[in-house]
Amino acid sequence: MIEKLLQPEIRDLIAADDLETLSEVFSDWLPADIAGLLTSLPEDERPQAFSAIQGDLAAETFEYLDPSDQAWLLEGMTREKASALLNVMSPDDRTALLEEVSEETAGEMMNLLSTEEREVARTLLDFPENSVGRLMTPDYIAVLEDWTVRRVLDHIRTHGRNSETLDVIYVVDANNRLVDDVHIRKFLLAEFHTGVADLMDNQFLALRATEDQESAIDVFRKYDRTVLPVIDARGRLLGIVTVDDMLDVAEEEATEDIQKFGGLEALDEPYVSTPLLRMVRKRASWLVILFLGEMLTATAMGFFEGQIARAVVLALFVPLIISSGGNSGSQAATLIIRALALGEVKLRDWWLVMRRELFSGLILGLILGTIGFLRIAVWSMFSQIYGPHWALVGLTVGLSLIGIVLWGTLAGSMLPFILKRFGADPATSSAPFVATLVDVTGLIIYFTVAVLVLRGTLL
Amino acid sequence: MIEKLLQPEIRDLIAADDLETLSEVFSDWLPADIAGLLTSLPEDERPQAFSAIQGDLAAETFEYLDPSDQAWLLEGMTREKASALLNVMSPDDRTALLEEVSEETAGEMMNLLSTEEREVARTLLDFPENSVGRLMTPDYIAVLEDWTVRRVLDHIRTHGRNSETLDVIYVVDANNRLVDDVHIRKFLLAEFHTGVADLMDNQFLALRATEDQESAIDVFRKYDRTVLPVIDARGRLLGIVTVDDMLDVAEEEATEDIQKFGGLEALDEPYVSTPLLRMVRKRASWLVILFLGEMLTATAMGFFEGQIARAVVLALFVPLIISSGGNSGSQAATLIIRALALGEVKLRDWWLVMRRELFSGLILGLILGTIGFLRIAVWSMFSQIYGPHWALVGLTVGLSLIGIVLWGTLAGSMLPFILKRFGADPATSSAPFVATLVDVTGLIIYFTVAVLVLRGTLL
Repeated sequence: MIEKLLQPEIRDLIAADDLETLSEVFSDWLPADIAGLLTSLPEDERPQAFSAIQGDLAAETFEYLDPSDQAWLLEGMTREKASALLNVMSPDDRTALLEEVSEETAGEMMNLLSTEEREVARTLLDFPENSVGRLMTPDYIAVLEDWTVRRVLDHIRTHGRNSETLDVIYVVDANNRLVDDVHIRKFLLAEFHTGVADLMDNQFLALRATEDQESAIDVFRKYDRTVLPVIDARGRLLGIVTVDDMLDVAEEEATEDIQKFGGLEALDEPYVSTPLLRMVRKRASWLVILFLGEMLTATAMGFFEGQIARAVVLALFVPLIISSGGNSGSQAATLIIRALALGEVKLRDWWLVMRRELFSGLILGLILGTIGFLRIAVWSMFSQIYGPHWALVGLTVGLSLIGIVLWGTLAGSMLPFILKRFGADPATSSAPFVATLVDVTGLIIYFTVAVLVLRGTLL
Repeated sequence: MIEKLLQPEIRDLIAADDLETLSEVFSDWLPADIAGLLTSLPEDERPQAFSAIQGDLAAETFEYLDPSDQAWLLEGMTREKASALLNVMSPDDRTALLEEVSEETAGEMMNLLSTEEREVARTLLDFPENSVGRLMTPDYIAVLEDWTVRRVLDHIRTHGRNSETLDVIYVVDANNRLVDDVHIRKFLLAEFHTGVADLMDNQFLALRATEDQESAIDVFRKYDRTVLPVIDARGRLLGIVTVDDMLDVAEEEATEDIQKFGGLEALDEPYVSTPLLRMVRKRASWLVILFLGEMLTATAMGFFEGQIARAVVLALFVPLIISSGGNSGSQAATLIIRALALGEVKLRDWWLVMRRELFSGLILGLILGTIGFLRIAVWSMFSQIYGPHWALVGLTVGLSLIGIVLWGTLAGSMLPFILKRFGADPATSSAPFVATLVDVTGLIIYFTVAVLVLRGTLL
């Protein structure tokens, strides 16, 4: 966190235009720390600070910046400087940058690339969004089966400078088809004259470039790998993906899921850098949908206006009743959505889940129903607010709670299955959505129970 | 997914007790796939299937099983077999297993370890739960500053067989204090007679063994590392942590956050393997707390019983009004909690957030308020349900919605800051909690607006 402590001093150096001292300070820092400092500076001081970073360190620091910050810095640079940076960026980071900017800007950036790098960039961008291809880098070590260990080590010496990792060496055939992955350990433990073929076990895992990034996470997790090769439909080696990129994918995914849970469209951008109106629009759309759904509660209540007029006491418990249904529904939905996302529960397990939730819902309903009844009984000892028929009112509330909590739990747990069955994202049946559904049906349950229990007395 | 396709055939082999064929089949599989198959088998068939796995493959497969499945398999084994497995397990996986089982079982397992391995296991278990120390493995390569590259490569040849990764070599001093980390690439690119000191830049990152696992994720992410060294308070090298373990930590954390969002205590176990009663208890505690909170709505409604009796129409909109407050509150809370967790927003940004949310809440309130008013206006053209004063009723609902959505948005966005300020986990101010708070206050806003607008007409 060095960059937080020294930020004021750095800003003084910028104000004094003392780029020489600044460049000395930076030379002792890690690129990620310099990037952290740059991001903490006001936008107009960043180009000056960035220009003080010398040589390779500038390029390394640049890669640690967010794509939007990268784009902003590039805009203010000379063509030469921008071109130098873009050409040395690692291809996967460059893909992320080109994805971020407008098509026009991306075109301009492509023109700044060397013919070779442009070809690389174009190939990566040709893969669909959110596919493994967009994350991969073509900087890896590939060797042939008939090489010796000595030749492989020599090859690493000449070609290993840029490869993302040297942990795994890939063996390909003459057509660049992947035939094996061999851990560097085996080469280091072997004699120089050993053949590559002798180190091979012909067992390897690979990702398809067109595969979804989410499914790639599962492979990394299941097989505990730190790096995986990426192949095309014909089995040819295209590049590698490292697990640290997966950490970012997993984080983005969790954010998306959490935002859907919270009843809003995924922002796709950090909170503070999302333009205010765009954020309001993303929130408004869901709020309005939920509001339109909730309007049905007014309709449902309208049907029972007569009952409410005769027994106003019934109205007092409406918020308590519907929120209990909503809470138990969102609990169940949360559990099931997450379990589905992690693969702990599969579609075919719906019946197992239903039995568990039937039981859970009944127990939870009994607990809340009992508390609800007791609350009314205790209050009635000290006040007349619930009238002479307080016991019947308590019974109405208690029985309704059992029914509504049970129903909320079932609806919340089954909705994700139904959505998934029809190809929709279960996370969409977010808590507020379940709550809205359960609110409307909960009112009907409540007033129906009331009519049955209170007929002849209050109603 | 080979294990899914062949599962029936495998079960036939188990039924026929043909362990020879089975062991041949397994010899072509990856350990993670065999582990996947074992988990998919009925529990009583697993020991037999496991016993068919030969040699090292058995130990490797064992490490891919969940700690609870590992414990179950060990129970049915002879002491010799169990001891052999436990002694060759990688120390970090063994720690996870010892954490999982009862203290008594853990003690028995410790007794099956060799003196050396027992020492290793004890050291790791001495670190606090959820600390980096529990994740680390002591299998790494450490070298001294005055060695040559040749000596390092020789050292790897003799000691590298078990190290988790060879990507990074650690340089320590005579007291085992970490002085640098050097990428294997540098050794592979250097001449044999080069000194280790010539390859060093004396810049390294390390985790403290007592550090929280969550904060370690942030370091991995910020600095894009695949492996990090772990040191004690005196800077001595204790072990290494690899990023694939972080993937699991990140996933568990996201699950925990999501479950807190859903208004329940974190389960800490997969949904299906959590005993039903334990799950109900975890869900009941929060549901009851929220229920007790929601009881205040009945109290609040009680204060306005007179108004409801005079204007029953007011009761019809209660669910609509309070759910809108709850939904906007949970949206805001979700956004802010996630932004705080990712470090996009800091405590000191509360004022910036408040201004954004004031604006957002006002716009969202205006949108919903307008829709609410229009709904009542349109309905009143076709029915008498809202009476002759429908315009005033519409005004009451519209104005209340503006106030409640604004208030819900502010409460939802500020509560996480307040909780964090007082050292609590912001995720606890989960959506249902905010909803409960906003429900009670929302009712007061609604009926207060009603009294002001409808005085002299309906009230």
